Amino acid sequence: MTVRLEVPASGTSVGQITTAVESSGGSVTGLDVTASGHEKLRIDVTVAATSTAHADEIVEKLRGIEGVHLGKVSDRTFLMHLGGKIEMASKHPIRNRDDLSMVYTPGVARVCMAIAENPEDARRLTIKRNSVAVVTDGSAVLGLGNIGPKAALPVMEGKAALFKRFAGIDAWPLCLDTQDTDAIVEIVKAIAPGFAGINLEDISAPRCFEIEARLREALDIPVFHDDQHGTAIVVLAALTNALRVVEKSIGDVRVVMSGAGAAGTAILKLLIAAGVKHAVVADIHGVVHAARPDLVDAGPETALRWIADNTNPEGITGTLKEAVRDADVFIGVSAPTSWAARTSPRWPTARSSSPWPTPTPRSSPASPARPPPSSPPAAPTSPTRSTTSWSSRESSAACWTPSPAPSTPT
Amino acid sequence: MTVRLEVPASGTSVGQITTAVESSGGSVTGLDVTASGHEKLRIDVTVAATSTAHADEIVEKLRGIEGVHLGKVSDRTFLMHLGGKIEMASKHPIRNRDDLSMVYTPGVARVCMAIAENPEDARRLTIKRNSVAVVTDGSAVLGLGNIGPKAALPVMEGKAALFKRFAGIDAWPLCLDTQDTDAIVEIVKAIAPGFAGINLEDISAPRCFEIEARLREALDIPVFHDDQHGTAIVVLAALTNALRVVEKSIGDVRVVMSGAGAAGTAILKLLIAAGVKHAVVADIHGVVHAARPDLVDAGPETALRWIADNTNPEGITGTLKEAVRDADVFIGVSAPTSWAARTSPRWPTARSSSPWPTPTPRSSPASPARPPPSSPPAAPTSPTRSTTSWSSRESSAACWTPSPAPSTPT
Repeated sequence: MTVRLEVPASGTSVGQITTAVESSGGSVTGLDVTASGHEKLRIDVTVAATSTAHADEIVEKLRGIEGVHLGKVSDRTFLMHLGGKIEMASKHPIRNRDDLSMVYTPGVARVCMAIAENPEDARRLTIKRNSVAVVTDGSAVLGLGNIGPKAALPVMEGKAALFKRFAGIDAWPLCLDTQDTDAIVEIVKAIAPGFAGINLEDISAPRCFEIEARLREALDIPVFHDDQHGTAIVVLAALTNALRVVEKSIGDVRVVMSGAGAAGTAILKLLIAAGVKHAVVADIHGVVHAARPDLVDAGPETALRWIADNTNPEGITGTLKEAVRDADVFIGVSAPTSWAARTSPRWPTARSSSPWPTPTPRSSPASPARPPPSSPPAAPTSPTRSTTSWSSRESSAACWTPSPAPSTPT
Repeated sequence: MTVRLEVPASGTSVGQITTAVESSGGSVTGLDVTASGHEKLRIDVTVAATSTAHADEIVEKLRGIEGVHLGKVSDRTFLMHLGGKIEMASKHPIRNRDDLSMVYTPGVARVCMAIAENPEDARRLTIKRNSVAVVTDGSAVLGLGNIGPKAALPVMEGKAALFKRFAGIDAWPLCLDTQDTDAIVEIVKAIAPGFAGINLEDISAPRCFEIEARLREALDIPVFHDDQHGTAIVVLAALTNALRVVEKSIGDVRVVMSGAGAAGTAILKLLIAAGVKHAVVADIHGVVHAARPDLVDAGPETALRWIADNTNPEGITGTLKEAVRDADVFIGVSAPTSWAARTSPRWPTARSSSPWPTPTPRSSPASPARPPPSSPPAAPTSPTRSTTSWSSRESSAACWTPSPAPSTPT
């Protein structure tokens, strides 16, 4: 946020302001004296806060400084969202009738007829070459839950901006006003002709599995469920780097995962494909194994059945607490509080990588970097995010890799 | 198209080339000598042709010039379409983690929650403020007919470019792989949360009427069928200007329209709302009147019934030929050839305005302007286009208004 202040023109005004911000836990990221007179200064101070409540707290602290008059408070994040974060742009100027006659009628008709004769030309002569639909039903947005299509739009716009920034792809958000599986499949099939790929985003499990599977079957363009495959790619990238640091081989490490939802299942499939041999998964009912009562009757096509059949070769039973003993890798993709609330692990010093669910933003990436904590951080304060894009650049920024430790388990 | 030629370095090469182009009916719009030596010149000549066949004809003529070596031939219109004509752009740079934390997580979460609490804020904080979906099923694209969603995409991209150029609106094309009325209605309803308006485009009659009516009923954002209302607005604008020139009043003129499809019906409704009192419509079966055999059983909700009830107060019967006698205004929105093929009108000299269906591009707007012909032009060679955008600028460019004539009917 940026706060406008009028302060007495003394030699200590700026110091008082910055001290007030920092003593409230905020970070000063910019400060401009925008007007100065004999008696008063006008100062715009830009502050990084971690939440709306924290921002209010800082503002109150500033208000408490003697002689200060508080002006307008503007929130940079909200300002950035005014009118939306993305726009449509024409690649060519339209300056005169000659331009118009090529961009639109009559010239465009020849291009249409060329595509009508050879539909594959759409990939050459239209945006189908480079465009992705970012599709959500708003049912599982970030860690915020089922907030619906309109409230999901800022996330989808942000994802479209990331697509352009990191991969040069033209993505457009489609926030659907239905959470019916059949309807979503039919809609995405219908809009597919104009896109080169489909990025499903923030659709809740287990519907996301069926929607993705049916669309992959039906369409001739790539279908990607970001929450599953995006997260899986980020985790594999982080694990690969972390194993290099601790000098372990992916085929030897014991991986323990908390959570068996959309992201967890996709991560597991990718890790196993990448060579992981020893994986154990725990969900809310404990460690997943073939003999667990709720799994005896689970159909062969369920995700949990697949996990039971492809993990836990040692047949471990019990809770996450037992499973995590002497693990090399812990992956948290369950609710943010499950680890801290339910587990007091005996953790080896040679841990390697710990991606974590989307945190409640108690620590902002905008705040100064902190050294890695000496034990695995509780999720809510972890600076780690499993937020993904198709870009490897973001993946390396989004994953926390601890500093190297000796490769000798306790 | 641009043609690269190598010619002998004589004093007459350029003249030979331009003469060859012009004698084939093409127009030279640019010429560059891009390399010159003692024996040879390399010349890039840019030529406006009216069709692919015409372009081929010009190229053959150039090939026939003695001593000329023909190089690459590139089509400017196709070049302009490579990879599509539009793109998605981020309004804000994403330079560092601080930017990222506002555009995406964790900052975006606060914006999402604000919208979840007050959904109307989506119009303030997202692209819903300024974005339009350009929706087609590819069933009636320009004058090209039912060419399907992929072949329709260049037109929809062009329309999106016009939206931005003339109105600053961010439009994105959605070309649907279904021509089922119910499915189209459900799809557009579902994608509506992310858009400020729906622009239906090139959907064939009579389905377009029902789709538009049902969407207007269901949605809380404007729904506009471009082929109907866009065309109607352009016609009313042209008629208003033309009546000013010939000094007639809209309530007094006799309007005759050929065609009773989507565009015709919408034009008629708008003209009547604007004050037209004497209108007669003819379709393929002749002049529309209440006693016409095919209308006796027509339901009260059909477009043709509405036309019969609201036009032709004098009860004219017969064909377009009879109806057009002593008309002040003729509006052609039927098939391009219907006028020339079927009618030999007795046309008053005080005609006012003649918008016409999308022409087959035998004369390109890129070719030099021609003086208005002395009698109403046959549709295929008319420079008039009924092509529309929401912009009044394009409407004035797209409508042909003849030079003033004395206001005394023959």
